[in-house]
Amino acid sequence: MTFDPETTTFLIAGPVRIHPRVLRAMSMPSLNHRGDYFHGIVTEIRELLPVLFGTKGHQVIITGSGTAGLEAMYSSLVPKDGRTLVLTNGNFGDRTNSIVRRYATNVTTLSAPWGQAVPSVAVKAELAKGDVKAVCLVHNETSVGLANDLALIAPAVKASGALFLVDGISAVAGIPLPIEEWGVDAVVAGSQKGLAAPAGLALVHLSDRAVAALHPGTFYLDLAAHLKSLEKNDTPWTPAVPLFLALREALLLLKEEGLDHRLEKTHRLAEASRAAVRALGLELFPDPRYASDTVTAVKNPPGMGDPEFRKVLERQYNILLQGGQAALAGKIFRIGHMGIADWPDLLVTFAAIERILSRAGKLPAPGQALREVVDRMP
Amino acid sequence: MTFDPETTTFLIAGPVRIHPRVLRAMSMPSLNHRGDYFHGIVTEIRELLPVLFGTKGHQVIITGSGTAGLEAMYSSLVPKDGRTLVLTNGNFGDRTNSIVRRYATNVTTLSAPWGQAVPSVAVKAELAKGDVKAVCLVHNETSVGLANDLALIAPAVKASGALFLVDGISAVAGIPLPIEEWGVDAVVAGSQKGLAAPAGLALVHLSDRAVAALHPGTFYLDLAAHLKSLEKNDTPWTPAVPLFLALREALLLLKEEGLDHRLEKTHRLAEASRAAVRALGLELFPDPRYASDTVTAVKNPPGMGDPEFRKVLERQYNILLQGGQAALAGKIFRIGHMGIADWPDLLVTFAAIERILSRAGKLPAPGQALREVVDRMP
Repeated sequence: MTFDPETTTFLIAGPVRIHPRVLRAMSMPSLNHRGDYFHGIVTEIRELLPVLFGTKGHQVIITGSGTAGLEAMYSSLVPKDGRTLVLTNGNFGDRTNSIVRRYATNVTTLSAPWGQAVPSVAVKAELAKGDVKAVCLVHNETSVGLANDLALIAPAVKASGALFLVDGISAVAGIPLPIEEWGVDAVVAGSQKGLAAPAGLALVHLSDRAVAALHPGTFYLDLAAHLKSLEKNDTPWTPAVPLFLALREALLLLKEEGLDHRLEKTHRLAEASRAAVRALGLELFPDPRYASDTVTAVKNPPGMGDPEFRKVLERQYNILLQGGQAALAGKIFRIGHMGIADWPDLLVTFAAIERILSRAGKLPAPGQALREVVDRMP
Repeated sequence: MTFDPETTTFLIAGPVRIHPRVLRAMSMPSLNHRGDYFHGIVTEIRELLPVLFGTKGHQVIITGSGTAGLEAMYSSLVPKDGRTLVLTNGNFGDRTNSIVRRYATNVTTLSAPWGQAVPSVAVKAELAKGDVKAVCLVHNETSVGLANDLALIAPAVKASGALFLVDGISAVAGIPLPIEEWGVDAVVAGSQKGLAAPAGLALVHLSDRAVAALHPGTFYLDLAAHLKSLEKNDTPWTPAVPLFLALREALLLLKEEGLDHRLEKTHRLAEASRAAVRALGLELFPDPRYASDTVTAVKNPPGMGDPEFRKVLERQYNILLQGGQAALAGKIFRIGHMGIADWPDLLVTFAAIERILSRAGKLPAPGQALREVVDRMP
């Protein structure tokens, strides 16, 4: 069987599968991005964005990758005077560290091994020193399939008075992120993760306090300029019109489903995936206490590299999972189950994995992984 | 008649009309942007990009508006030591000036009134001082319908040894821009102008000399990082996959048509538009010697503002032209005739304009504008 992008079972760690309604939305002919019709679309998007973030606030749409959203947030909000605290335990945390260090002069980075939690006691100790003006971290570390426990450190950040700046690219609409309760000041979401729109837009939520603290970052990513234009349902620079049309449709789908339902389904798919992985005799890569609900990262079956495992899934079964990044390449595989991923995807995927392991004489309990999935279906 | 975006005659100054083949290309389901299939698409795009720029070279694709491409170019190439010369005679020239001044410390700006050429003698006088390290300008100033005469100043820039950095967003595939002959070191093209792809990608061409001169700009727009990834047919950050698919299709269409043919057709449509405007008794906004071939900017009919003129075209005839920017709002209208614009668009547009002026008792020679168009058809 040849890999067929039109019919593949698509479970990479994002971009995720896109609903046909969202794909079709992009086929509308050109629009005048400075005209009333497009302003109407931006108006609708602004009305729908609180569905995504779970709260109202100052919300910005940037034509660019999630990384553009991160640079917009950090370049506009990390303090030039005062200390910035960065937490990292994966590839995207390291990226946060790189971006923050371009704009902040006094940075303390707390690192944990990839896949392990940064000890909250260490975070609290730094905050207790009283001079931290901003805390930056990745909520959901897709690279290692780990969700950082923000509930644990949010109260300490709040008490310190520091700005709380969160890379929520793969967290928003994937795992619970109660922005108000945790006192988060800025969150970046990507269009291509829990929301299940195409990649190419970054969505930024800002608190009142964050808006007051904005300073000029880069020219293109100046959040103050974006906010000013959006007040008139406009954009400072030419928007990627088809992606805005897709965003509106994906937000409508999310509204129809409900954010709570999407979070709950993502959680159930994650529980089923983790149970199936255990039944296969395989091991999660991250500390299981912090396993992410949007992406399950698993150590490759012993003695099997990508060519014997993930590539067989792709070429023989037309199933796309994702491999490891950087030092983890060839060592782990990752199953994305956020956005509009659903039970049939897991059934097809674990059936094929059972078959591959069975043929290799490495399947401990035939049928058990599939049963774990079925038992968790609604 | 209600304005209908699906059937409108679409002649704004960009984004331009998109061919149905290009629209359909975006409806492909999600792809793994780190997988072989997508790398194959990037490979094809890289092979096709010289069709757009008319030459080979180091060519980069950025997920972002044209403004992102400009900030990538200027932040990475304007010298930190030494003088930078900026030319401006319109809204986009003023934007160039703003971006350059974020990154260069010693900037001389030569301004002409909007719509007038910057005197080449003044440019040459600055270059003759011998300390200019970079020259920055907008080739085609869409805001006022003017094309700057690069042929006139290119030899002086070349002789000075300064880097020649050109905003070609609305010039590339719209008006001739012989990169090699003029010694241009960097050009930014927008996807949504002469190429007729959707907005949301910026394309940058760099000379060997420019690549050697790159220094770190912003994180997201670091041209060196983009070049390094593209060598492996990859992108440093998650690409806007549907826009890449559309880009490939638009480049294929351009290849099938031929760059020379597109430039020639754009020129003929411009000549026809200018002749029709004269026949209507109306006046071009810019100095006619420098009138742009991609967009014809015209002073509004005397006594008619946007509500009496451009809005009638839109609401009554379903024809979209563009108005003026900033101080020119309500004073000029602009007809875009680049990309895949064609003769039927001009016929429909000038027929409607004749009708509006006739009803207002302001049409000097009935039928003459249309005749000027017909006489210039192939």
